[in-house]
Amino acid sequence: MFHLIREEGRARRGTFKTPHGDIQTPVFMDVGTQGAIKGGLSAEDLHRIRCQVELSNTYHLHVRPGDKLVRRQGGLHRFMTWDGPILTDSGGFQIFSLAGLRKITEEGVTFASHVDGRHIFMGPEESMRIQSNLGSDIAMAFDECVKIPSPRKYVEASCERTLRWCARCKVELERLNSSPDALNPGQMLFGINQGAVFHDLRIRNMEALRELDLPGYAIGGLAVGETTQEMYDTISVLEPYMPSNRPRYLMGVGTPTNIIEGVARGIDFFDCVMPARNGRHGHLFTWTGIININNERYSEDEGPIDAQCDCPICSRYSRSYLRHLLKCGETLYLRLAVMHNLYFYNRLLEKIRESLDGGMFEEFRKQYSGMLDQRI
Amino acid sequence: MFHLIREEGRARRGTFKTPHGDIQTPVFMDVGTQGAIKGGLSAEDLHRIRCQVELSNTYHLHVRPGDKLVRRQGGLHRFMTWDGPILTDSGGFQIFSLAGLRKITEEGVTFASHVDGRHIFMGPEESMRIQSNLGSDIAMAFDECVKIPSPRKYVEASCERTLRWCARCKVELERLNSSPDALNPGQMLFGINQGAVFHDLRIRNMEALRELDLPGYAIGGLAVGETTQEMYDTISVLEPYMPSNRPRYLMGVGTPTNIIEGVARGIDFFDCVMPARNGRHGHLFTWTGIININNERYSEDEGPIDAQCDCPICSRYSRSYLRHLLKCGETLYLRLAVMHNLYFYNRLLEKIRESLDGGMFEEFRKQYSGMLDQRI
Repeated sequence: MFHLIREEGRARRGTFKTPHGDIQTPVFMDVGTQGAIKGGLSAEDLHRIRCQVELSNTYHLHVRPGDKLVRRQGGLHRFMTWDGPILTDSGGFQIFSLAGLRKITEEGVTFASHVDGRHIFMGPEESMRIQSNLGSDIAMAFDECVKIPSPRKYVEASCERTLRWCARCKVELERLNSSPDALNPGQMLFGINQGAVFHDLRIRNMEALRELDLPGYAIGGLAVGETTQEMYDTISVLEPYMPSNRPRYLMGVGTPTNIIEGVARGIDFFDCVMPARNGRHGHLFTWTGIININNERYSEDEGPIDAQCDCPICSRYSRSYLRHLLKCGETLYLRLAVMHNLYFYNRLLEKIRESLDGGMFEEFRKQYSGMLDQRI
Repeated sequence: MFHLIREEGRARRGTFKTPHGDIQTPVFMDVGTQGAIKGGLSAEDLHRIRCQVELSNTYHLHVRPGDKLVRRQGGLHRFMTWDGPILTDSGGFQIFSLAGLRKITEEGVTFASHVDGRHIFMGPEESMRIQSNLGSDIAMAFDECVKIPSPRKYVEASCERTLRWCARCKVELERLNSSPDALNPGQMLFGINQGAVFHDLRIRNMEALRELDLPGYAIGGLAVGETTQEMYDTISVLEPYMPSNRPRYLMGVGTPTNIIEGVARGIDFFDCVMPARNGRHGHLFTWTGIININNERYSEDEGPIDAQCDCPICSRYSRSYLRHLLKCGETLYLRLAVMHNLYFYNRLLEKIRESLDGGMFEEFRKQYSGMLDQRI
């Protein structure tokens, strides 16, 4: 399903086949947690911002409106009217960051919903059933995302349990996919590597994970408290142990520079709430660095956010107008800012792919790594 | 500038020529108070929802970002990227409803900005200069909108002062339009009739106003506390005194039924925040009445908001998805709801015009008046 087109150093250019179309990699996935992108973007808008893959959240959609409801509505693709590939995360991350009163056993996790406090049990089988009901193209294995720093003993035990959970996910998803009423029988499972910043635990976990022969592998539990250098080092150490004929997904990462450096270390898939969140607060990406549209100096600026950008926002609206909308608290600001920032990310990955196609990725990296994260 | 095409009873079908295109009347104007429609709609979206006229607010734009800034940015059309007709209200309504610490004299009103408490003076000349800086196609005369009920003595004195202010507006706008650096030298002034529900004051005020020979006349100070019947009666009593060769604008009104009944009483222009505001709270208009999308019964409803509606929302999204977005507090809900409701209003006025063109307005009125306001 993953086809490696070309390599440059450790960086990889590929395609990944899904039931809702081929994904060109490296790819950034646009986050629509509850079946909608923050800032008022619709599925139509996803096409306009050159989105390839939409990412939704198992925990959130299970709590509200309920995955069974989504299934009765024809699945998440039909519910939100998005016809491209969808990846759903496993719910693990939110259970460990958002929900209350968690209790972990070998079976799974009991937690209290952040919406109404209702007690919910989710284990690997439940996570797979929910994701099967949503009908995403890529389902993520149910995992515990351990915060950094955590004691080595805890990380080791958690890793081993997450690995056992992953094996159960595989069995359950195969069962669900073989059922005649499977919504998306081609749904694929990605395993998630954990181990905090303990390199030996990461490697041991990866060696065991690859034995499961899954369609893809993610690196989870990074960008949760470690330094950027620790994150880069962990990826570099781990990468040789990841099968080269499977896509690698660095979960929840990151800044434009993190993405360029991730690609340079052999990563193929990325997702992050940062472009949408930062956009809402006034931080807008440009090809020369990040501007803060709150700044007084933009109040009379007739130019677009970025003269080099060909997004639907830059082709029409001025910095002056955007700043006015932000200062007034107009919802339209959110929409325009999020559209611009997500377009920027999707274009960044397009440019990375173009540079890989032309054997110019290292030059691209030299030009843009670091620089794109700077406030100007 | 106003061309009367056809009449049916007191209802009128016409066109009104402006520097940014002809307006087909009767017309509903879509409210974008601060230069943006609530709910994240852009100028592009205004075309999609069949908007003819955008209405912005003199008070708000004067306070933020400042009318001089908007002028330096090329005027409101360019600032918000809307190329159709724009009407700006005079600021009077907000001064008397939103600002603090008001002090009225013959010269004008001193008030405190609702944003930062800054003291601002606005009189007829200031209002015209601001609207000239915004470059709208239709400027509204600076008026006091008296709340209902108010003592007759107060209403009478206020009416007379508003009339004197209107005469000063006319002189000032003529001066501004004749200046070589006028942004929109074809900008037109509409006078505003006041008088609460005192019919004789309304009539006397209208008789004096029409002497000013303005391009259009508005009925202000209704829908501010009186009953619907009192509003209808006031319009009916006043209408014969309004020049038939000028458009009549019923300010801030109203429900679909109010609009149909307004047309039946000779009104040509309408505006109201209701479709956007009600939409945000879950009340969605349909051709068989108003639904509340919060209702549990829509949680699994795969159908569109209204099967009879051909708006961009109804052609794509289900009631079930919309209800989910509303329940989760997703911004996308606001956008979809406001787009649907404004489209409904703009289509309502289109249907009214079609019925007038075909001499069928009375049948249209019989079918829809009352019914469209009902909760179903």
